Amino acid sequence: MKKYCFGIDVGGTTVKCGLFDVKGEVLDKWEIHTRTENNGINILPDVADTIAAKILEKKLDREEIAGVGIGVPGPVDEEGNVMVAVNLHWGYLQLTEEMEKMTGLPVRAGNDANVAALGEMWKGGGAGYHNVVMVTLGTGVGGGIIVNGKIVTGSHGAGGEIGHIHVEDSMEESCNCGNKGCLEQFVSATGIVRLANKMLDESDAPSVLRNGPVSAKTVFDAVKEKDGLAAEIAEQFGKYLGTALAVIAGVVDPEVFVIGGGVSKAGQVVIDYIRKYYREYAFSGCKDTAFALAELGNDAGIYGAARLVLD
Amino acid sequence: MKKYCFGIDVGGTTVKCGLFDVKGEVLDKWEIHTRTENNGINILPDVADTIAAKILEKKLDREEIAGVGIGVPGPVDEEGNVMVAVNLHWGYLQLTEEMEKMTGLPVRAGNDANVAALGEMWKGGGAGYHNVVMVTLGTGVGGGIIVNGKIVTGSHGAGGEIGHIHVEDSMEESCNCGNKGCLEQFVSATGIVRLANKMLDESDAPSVLRNGPVSAKTVFDAVKEKDGLAAEIAEQFGKYLGTALAVIAGVVDPEVFVIGGGVSKAGQVVIDYIRKYYREYAFSGCKDTAFALAELGNDAGIYGAARLVLD
Repeated sequence: MKKYCFGIDVGGTTVKCGLFDVKGEVLDKWEIHTRTENNGINILPDVADTIAAKILEKKLDREEIAGVGIGVPGPVDEEGNVMVAVNLHWGYLQLTEEMEKMTGLPVRAGNDANVAALGEMWKGGGAGYHNVVMVTLGTGVGGGIIVNGKIVTGSHGAGGEIGHIHVEDSMEESCNCGNKGCLEQFVSATGIVRLANKMLDESDAPSVLRNGPVSAKTVFDAVKEKDGLAAEIAEQFGKYLGTALAVIAGVVDPEVFVIGGGVSKAGQVVIDYIRKYYREYAFSGCKDTAFALAELGNDAGIYGAARLVLD
Repeated sequence: MKKYCFGIDVGGTTVKCGLFDVKGEVLDKWEIHTRTENNGINILPDVADTIAAKILEKKLDREEIAGVGIGVPGPVDEEGNVMVAVNLHWGYLQLTEEMEKMTGLPVRAGNDANVAALGEMWKGGGAGYHNVVMVTLGTGVGGGIIVNGKIVTGSHGAGGEIGHIHVEDSMEESCNCGNKGCLEQFVSATGIVRLANKMLDESDAPSVLRNGPVSAKTVFDAVKEKDGLAAEIAEQFGKYLGTALAVIAGVVDPEVFVIGGGVSKAGQVVIDYIRKYYREYAFSGCKDTAFALAELGNDAGIYGAARLVLD
């Protein structure tokens, strides 16, 4: 009878770690430093060590541990091999196989954005649903697609790469991915600043946004204060993202869209602008699909990673 | 030991029927008339009767029959309930349950476009793959998404409704679905005629297309004859569809796109125009995704339906 599982979220600076019971209650939560030097050769041994230490500390019976789930910042295939993880200085790595050897426990691995989506489905904004699309609006735009409770990994590990779907032909600046006109260039925190600066340049309208540095937060704060120009920026943001989510609904038709990341901290107003355009462009059967804010914040990754080993 | 299965494709005019062995060899193929009068109340009994007759005719042992798969023109949920099927004059119907009672055999049901995609994955243009996106370019645009060998049905039965993803803000004419600017309005056989007539009106360039009624076939025939205006129409077609498939790749990242329907009869030239724009807009990891022409034609539905009962 399995009672426990570990959820590990490997980031470029810290590795977040969680010990969970199999119902999804977090029993302990801690972090270790991510040692990226020497091509990140120490990262997996460090994770194995901290797990071994926790097993000792908590006097866990290994027979009662379902396994270790790991999310990493890069594409991961169905067999748990990492293609590349730039921020960890990793190239190709048989992650699942190596971690199983080091820990002596069953291991499952996934891309961090996908794993976060699974976490939100399990215990966050998507709880109670099994078909979820999560969008993380941070410095970039991450995504995760869950169909019937399982991550859609994709045949090149690019399932849920919705930050890089093409939304604008007229964009001349290149995205980090090399293409032009990606969703991320308009609706990430950085993208919202780009939209805002362009609109502030092109308009003479007064706005509180002219008083200081612009960020996604100042834009949505100004929207809440009924600033006209800020509202126009939010409309553009909502049009790009709402239309993109309507397209996604025509592909996988989820039960719920979960909106997370720093931009989502502005709250319901973000969903209101997205949903306005979503409803305009979504296929008739999907217009009433639910929207929810993410609830787990930076812990979504450890929840989702733990969930990986419980299938 | 199961040896046989039936695949049934219910259309508005005829019901296509197939008897298969479990390896996917078709043993017999026939059609019956679709009796849509009286809200289509006779359709299922007629299907049950023709199956019973075939079992007698072929002296099949019922113990050796894996079951009956059925594709229908309308949304079907995970439990095999039809929401509505306008062309059959059906409202809500517990299709799987009713057919199991009538036939005494296990029954699985799916949307016809999704089921056709499964058929092409099994024995057609997508054979050997398990992650397939199929696009059927006919009077409308149908789609089917297969992830890890299973149809993505969607939570409102709208999985794979890619004919109705939004691709053009400037479209003023409404699509049959009620929205404006759907993919179907530009890349279906009807959509290609629309693109062609618009371009013929707006240009004075000579073209063989000015000599008679325009169809998707005459456009691609003219492209093969190096007609300049026809090539421009094909570029527009390729841009709309290639960009849309690039977006879909950023959602489910398939191994192959299978292109079917009447328009695909023009052959490789259709794929060439689609892939040109697909490669421009797809996420870096997905630019080399395979493209194939559908191979099963009107039989894709019976193959896919038969495949439904073999999982």
